Order: sequence, then structure tokens, then C-alpha cells
Amino acid sequence: MISLVISEAALEIIPTNIVHHPSVTNHARKLGKKPLETLLDRSFHHAAMQSSKLEFAWKRGRPDLVHFALIEALSTPLFLNHLLQVYVSTPCNQVIYIGRSLRIPKSYSRFEGLIIDLFKNNHIKEEKSEITLLKLQRNVSLGSLIKDIIKPSKVIGLSRVGILSSPKEIVSTHINKDSYQCAFVVGGFPRGHFTENTTRLCDFIYSIGNYSLEAHVVIARILYECEKALEVN
Amino acid sequence: MISLVISEAALEIIPTNIVHHPSVTNHARKLGKKPLETLLDRSFHHAAMQSSKLEFAWKRGRPDLVHFALIEALSTPLFLNHLLQVYVSTPCNQVIYIGRSLRIPKSYSRFEGLIIDLFKNNHIKEEKSEITLLKLQRNVSLGSLIKDIIKPSKVIGLSRVGILSSPKEIVSTHINKDSYQCAFVVGGFPRGHFTENTTRLCDFIYSIGNYSLEAHVVIARILYECEKALEVN
Repeated sequence: MISLVISEAALEIIPTNIVHHPSVTNHARKLGKKPLETLLDRSFHHAAMQSSKLEFAWKRGRPDLVHFALIEALSTPLFLNHLLQVYVSTPCNQVIYIGRSLRIPKSYSRFEGLIIDLFKNNHIKEEKSEITLLKLQRNVSLGSLIKDIIKPSKVIGLSRVGILSSPKEIVSTHINKDSYQCAFVVGGFPRGHFTENTTRLCDFIYSIGNYSLEAHVVIARILYECEKALEVN
Repeated sequence: MISLVISEAALEIIPTNIVHHPSVTNHARKLGKKPLETLLDRSFHHAAMQSSKLEFAWKRGRPDLVHFALIEALSTPLFLNHLLQVYVSTPCNQVIYIGRSLRIPKSYSRFEGLIIDLFKNNHIKEEKSEITLLKLQRNVSLGSLIKDIIKPSKVIGLSRVGILSSPKEIVSTHINKDSYQCAFVVGGFPRGHFTENTTRLCDFIYSIGNYSLEAHVVIARILYECEKALEVN
């Protein structure tokens, strides 16, 4: 099984210290929700994020990026063929486990509703079959996710500051039909690089181009090359 | 220049015959907008779409799909290197021309605001430079867009019912560094196939896999192979 970890993901419920800020309460009211039932989103909460001096604010409040990254991964034949396991790891040591049967909502508002529900109930199952669609585990660091849960043969980080290579070269170096227990780690944040902690967990770090590419583009290209290597079609 | 046409795109303002339906007015009120300032979206307007028996309803009301397809295309080094021109063509014979400098909003609500503004004013320019970001032309059919505006050497449709091939084969057959005046046509709708009219306009129609792939996946794979053929990095 190939694993994909969307790491340091900019996905969180509104932090309690900005819950009363007008940009937060106004946005929640518009949606007919309570502030703690909405996700931190720079599009709406920029003023609150600035005034409260949230730590590492430049890496936070981009649930849309995580949404795109997930849609990208979950739309691939690799995932549909059960050859890919996807995880989201947040800076607060939460891990979201993505079930094989999840049909992720394309509508952002439905995605937001689903994630809020997950943060509240920790587990979302398919109604009839009781199959897990999403599971949230708390107090699981990225290190613990990789070393204790995924246990891959190799951890491959993808970052602008890695060694320049192509998706095809990376995949052909590390993956073949007899051996593909790799975990790919892609940042789920808008700016900056992996933390030192994330970097240390990677056996290799590659950059797949001269451009600073969006996470979803990196995911699309790596998974497509994995499919070619594994002859999925 | 390579062209990408997102055709028969499920992108439109609320049709006037459902403007008073409760599912439409309630959703607009929630957003603090008038119904005619929102896009038809099956996530919210399903009841209105059903009760009014909208023509071709199954192909309509998916602005999220068009949003993803655009984000996919506009995030590629091919686009960033000005080697890709992107158009959206709607069933109502509207054509949206995507300017080279457009940084498409990732936030869906901002995207919706931008498209509403475009449908109202027909033209969106960068504030200072006056460079065109988006332009809407009405009464331009897909045929006219292809034959009179793009004038490509080949028109390549991508559809589940096309001839099975791989993105690499398709691109290596039709594109090389000396000749890449191709237009790729990808459906911007959730279900069904190209209309006969669209089919007739294509010189070739290919399917890139045994799965029914989302438009954004098809776009990601074809454009990535184009970059490889043109040695963009």
C-alpha cells in the first residue's frame, strides 16, 4: 500500500481565543452556525488571525487547500483501486484517517460540515454499512503516525527545498510492482516549508520542479506516476 | 500555444424561472445576496432544479467542478509559462476567456463572487495595470470558439466514450516542440457525455482510462504530459 500524508495541514476549528472576534461571529452568523462549528479560514477570519497574533498564522486557516489536496488524491484510480491510504496530520497532533469508501464532497460547504462533524464526533461511518468514512485520532504526532501506524519502508517528503527531481524519476527510484510500501509526505499549508520535525522524519526530500507548486499539483503528479509504475488502469 | 476548453460547463447564474423557489431564496438570504447574485448549485438548489424540470438538469449546477478544473489548469507550470490558454464554454453559448495573470481564488465563495461579477460586467481587469483577468463573450458557440477564435491544428476531445489511450500516448502522438497548436476539450459537467455538436467538433476523442475520471484529473494528467513533451520545468 502506498501512503499519502497531508502534513502540517492548515485545518482546524476556530481557536477559542478568537471565537468572539467580529470577523468570526459575523461569518458564523451568515452561515447560521455557531463560531465553534466553523473552520478557521483566512478568507473570512484574516482580521481575527492578525489581531490575535495567532502563532504560525501564515501556515494556518486554509481548509480549502486541504480540501483540494484530498479531492485530488481521492479522485485517482490509485485510490479507487485501494492501493492508496490517505492521512491528514495537523500541527495540533490530530490525525484524520480517510476511509476507502469516502466520497469526499466537492462542495466546500459540505466538506466543512463533514469536518466539523468529525471534530465533534471523532468518527464518521457510512449510514447503513457502518464502514468508517473518516476517523479522527488526537495526540498522534506525525512521527507516531509514520513510525507506529503506517510503518512504511521509505518516507519521501515533497518540498520546494528538496533535491530537484521529476515525479517519474522519484517514483521509478522508489516504487515498483514488488515494493511500494512508501509514504509520501506533502505539506497541507499555504506558505513556508516543513518544520524541522517533519524534515527529520523523511528519508528523502525532493522538489519536483522549479516552481513552487500547489500541494494538489504535486499529489496529482506523484500519484499518476505511481499508477504508471504499478500499471493501474 | 496549447488550448484547453472546459466545454458544456455547468456554470450559470440562477435561471430566472426558479428565482423565487424557496431553496433559492433561502440560500441567497443566508449569503446576504440576491438570488440573481448566486450561481446555480445543485448542493443548494436541488429541490428547485427538480420541481421546475430544468432542461438537461443532470448536466447543470456544478460550479464546483468548473472551479476545480480551472484551479487544476491554472496551477500548472504550463499555464504559468504562458504556454496554455484556457477557455470555459457554456451550453448557453457563453465563453469565458481566462487571462494569463488571473490568480484564481481557491476559496469557493470568492470564486463565486468573481464569476457573478463577470456575468454582470463581462470584463474583469487587474486594478492597476488594466490587464484582462476574465472576459465573458456571449453568443459564441463552442464551434465558433474553436473555428474562429482558437483555430487549432487539431481538436482533441477527452471523454469516457473515446478510444482508450494513455495521456502520454495522446500527447506524444499530437504534440512536440515544433508543433503544439492543439485544443483539448474536457467536459465541465458532472454526468453524461459530450453533445453531438461537441463530438462533431473534435478531430479525435480519447478516453484516458477504464475509470470515469473527474475533469480535473484528466486536465492534470494531460497538461503534465504536455509539459514533459515541451520540456517545461
